[in-house]
Amino acid sequence: VNAPPDIVPPVIDRGPLAGLPPTLEWVGGRDGVLRLLDQTLLPGRIETRDCANVEQVWEAIRVLRVRGAPAIGVAAAYGLCLGTRPHRHLPRAAFLAQVREVGQYLRSCRPTAVNLAWAIARLTARAEAGPAADVAATWDALLAEAHDMAAEDAATCRRIGENGAALIPEGGGVLTHCNAGALATVAYGTALSLLYVARARGRHFTAHVDETRPLLQGARLTALELSRAGIDVTVLCDGAAASLMQAGRIQLVVVGADRIAANGDTANKIGTYALALAARHHGIPFYVAAPLSTFDRALACGADIPIEQRPEDEVRAALGTAITPPGARCYNPAFDVTPAALITGIVTEKGIVRPVTQAQVQRLFDPNTANVPRHGS
Amino acid sequence: VNAPPDIVPPVIDRGPLAGLPPTLEWVGGRDGVLRLLDQTLLPGRIETRDCANVEQVWEAIRVLRVRGAPAIGVAAAYGLCLGTRPHRHLPRAAFLAQVREVGQYLRSCRPTAVNLAWAIARLTARAEAGPAADVAATWDALLAEAHDMAAEDAATCRRIGENGAALIPEGGGVLTHCNAGALATVAYGTALSLLYVARARGRHFTAHVDETRPLLQGARLTALELSRAGIDVTVLCDGAAASLMQAGRIQLVVVGADRIAANGDTANKIGTYALALAARHHGIPFYVAAPLSTFDRALACGADIPIEQRPEDEVRAALGTAITPPGARCYNPAFDVTPAALITGIVTEKGIVRPVTQAQVQRLFDPNTANVPRHGS
Repeated sequence: VNAPPDIVPPVIDRGPLAGLPPTLEWVGGRDGVLRLLDQTLLPGRIETRDCANVEQVWEAIRVLRVRGAPAIGVAAAYGLCLGTRPHRHLPRAAFLAQVREVGQYLRSCRPTAVNLAWAIARLTARAEAGPAADVAATWDALLAEAHDMAAEDAATCRRIGENGAALIPEGGGVLTHCNAGALATVAYGTALSLLYVARARGRHFTAHVDETRPLLQGARLTALELSRAGIDVTVLCDGAAASLMQAGRIQLVVVGADRIAANGDTANKIGTYALALAARHHGIPFYVAAPLSTFDRALACGADIPIEQRPEDEVRAALGTAITPPGARCYNPAFDVTPAALITGIVTEKGIVRPVTQAQVQRLFDPNTANVPRHGS
Repeated sequence: VNAPPDIVPPVIDRGPLAGLPPTLEWVGGRDGVLRLLDQTLLPGRIETRDCANVEQVWEAIRVLRVRGAPAIGVAAAYGLCLGTRPHRHLPRAAFLAQVREVGQYLRSCRPTAVNLAWAIARLTARAEAGPAADVAATWDALLAEAHDMAAEDAATCRRIGENGAALIPEGGGVLTHCNAGALATVAYGTALSLLYVARARGRHFTAHVDETRPLLQGARLTALELSRAGIDVTVLCDGAAASLMQAGRIQLVVVGADRIAANGDTANKIGTYALALAARHHGIPFYVAAPLSTFDRALACGADIPIEQRPEDEVRAALGTAITPPGARCYNPAFDVTPAALITGIVTEKGIVRPVTQAQVQRLFDPNTANVPRHGS
């Protein structure tokens, strides 16, 4: 018998980040590896790391070599492929038991990351769909599904950028927080996708990036992305954002999201809420950019969103140096919640939700809504 | 002839900070030195540094070994004494020329802190007052004046605390920013003086401290002071303050000031303005605590206050590690301006200015105003 042809990774539009390896990519065919850009070393060192087994993927997600909800989801999907690859010659029941076991193991690594559980569930369902008589073909289907998820993520992010790019005024200043960029997704990012598409369309603007304490994703990752894409970028301490607005240098604020409730209340990286308050005071449009998969319509409002408290040492031991005296505690929530009333609009792959109300969010998920109106300018 | 007796430094109430050397003190008589607690090494190392000439004082102010508007003023006064000490045997005109030259040199060191210019002006006037026939005695008078200023600063700060302590609600949460404490003054501090006096009066409360990027004065200095004084203290990243307010954990915000315009607009450490906006949104009282010497009534409003732009590397090279990629600029203003309309009151040694208006500020300086009404609670 002839072996089926090998499985080829999808060709993905990686966006404008020349000179940076992809956030993640599958290299090779059935016997390939998951290659990650190691984000813990950025911006000082640009190095990739190949994961040939699921334990290496687990470790990479755990220590934030790969981060950002969409990127974590896709990495976990490939991790499930790697973890079940040695078992593709087992009988079907034993193989499916392995799928569940490896999936449970991957879910344990960052239990609050909803995209991780979503990706595992999608691949588990695919495994159960068969073909029942051919486990090797089922495993092939898992790898193909992971490839689909990677390609979909990049395409979704690009559409978010296309839907929101016109929000960026020519000659204006844009402020963002944390990293909602290509490094948090397969390509393009969410909030930063607007900037990349606007730049490709010839629009000129200045990007201002909060450094984003405690882990400095804005300074380390977003500034790196934007400068690689040829976008003029200035980093500031989180506390300086309001004074930039006061000085008239910001015309748009755009951030990502970690979870969005049914009424549009949005959990995002700590510091986002203060930006939204300052933007409102200065009459500056404040937008969230996120795919539909970030909405959690099971939660009525922001008060229902669980807020992860992270280790005190992330604040205390800034970059390895102890900055607080003995005896001082630290408060280190990972996220805050910005009420829908402070959000001008939410840019999704299906259009812009505006105004941000429960009815508008619901309309976004209505199969009869082809597309919500785009911004006119 | 008998030499006049040596000049003895004043005895100063240093407040509750057992185990910490004074922020600054003159050690010795006419041939003494200015001894500074080197704040760049805190909280890890507690070391003092002796300045025997004006260049060492200038450097210490510039690189923030000594910082905080009131402390800078007193340090500059002693710096003027050190800088003119070699010239106390010159003829009067040549000596006064030296006073002006050294004063100009010291004023160049940090542009926003009005106390520095205020201190230089006060000592220059003292030098011009003579006695005209005795330059050595005039120099003695300068050193005595600097001693007076040090003692006055500690007493003024203590009075600020006494005037504002009742603003802190029993069992409440207090938020502060940067360091407006004993380390920013000769003793007690401005904003933190309220906390020390309230604590001495038996009031219980929790202190929350913004870490205050880029130089982390909140995490390094304020947390150190407060924990040495036995006050319960929690450090947070600057971006997390608004979420603490949202959670109902803050009942009072109190900060210091670097310069206050005639209408009450207040320049203070970058990040203060964002706190004022968030406090207003949440209906939380926002107070500034500062001595009368921090008012600059020559400036009509905050737009007239010069804002010092500090080196980009303070942001870029966080704690010695480069955190931004090549090509990214950094925005690093030392201060921002909070409009008077966002300030509930200004606590001074003469009472509380409230509401914060030009008329109320003017009344504070009216010699017929014995004391503006204190807070009633």
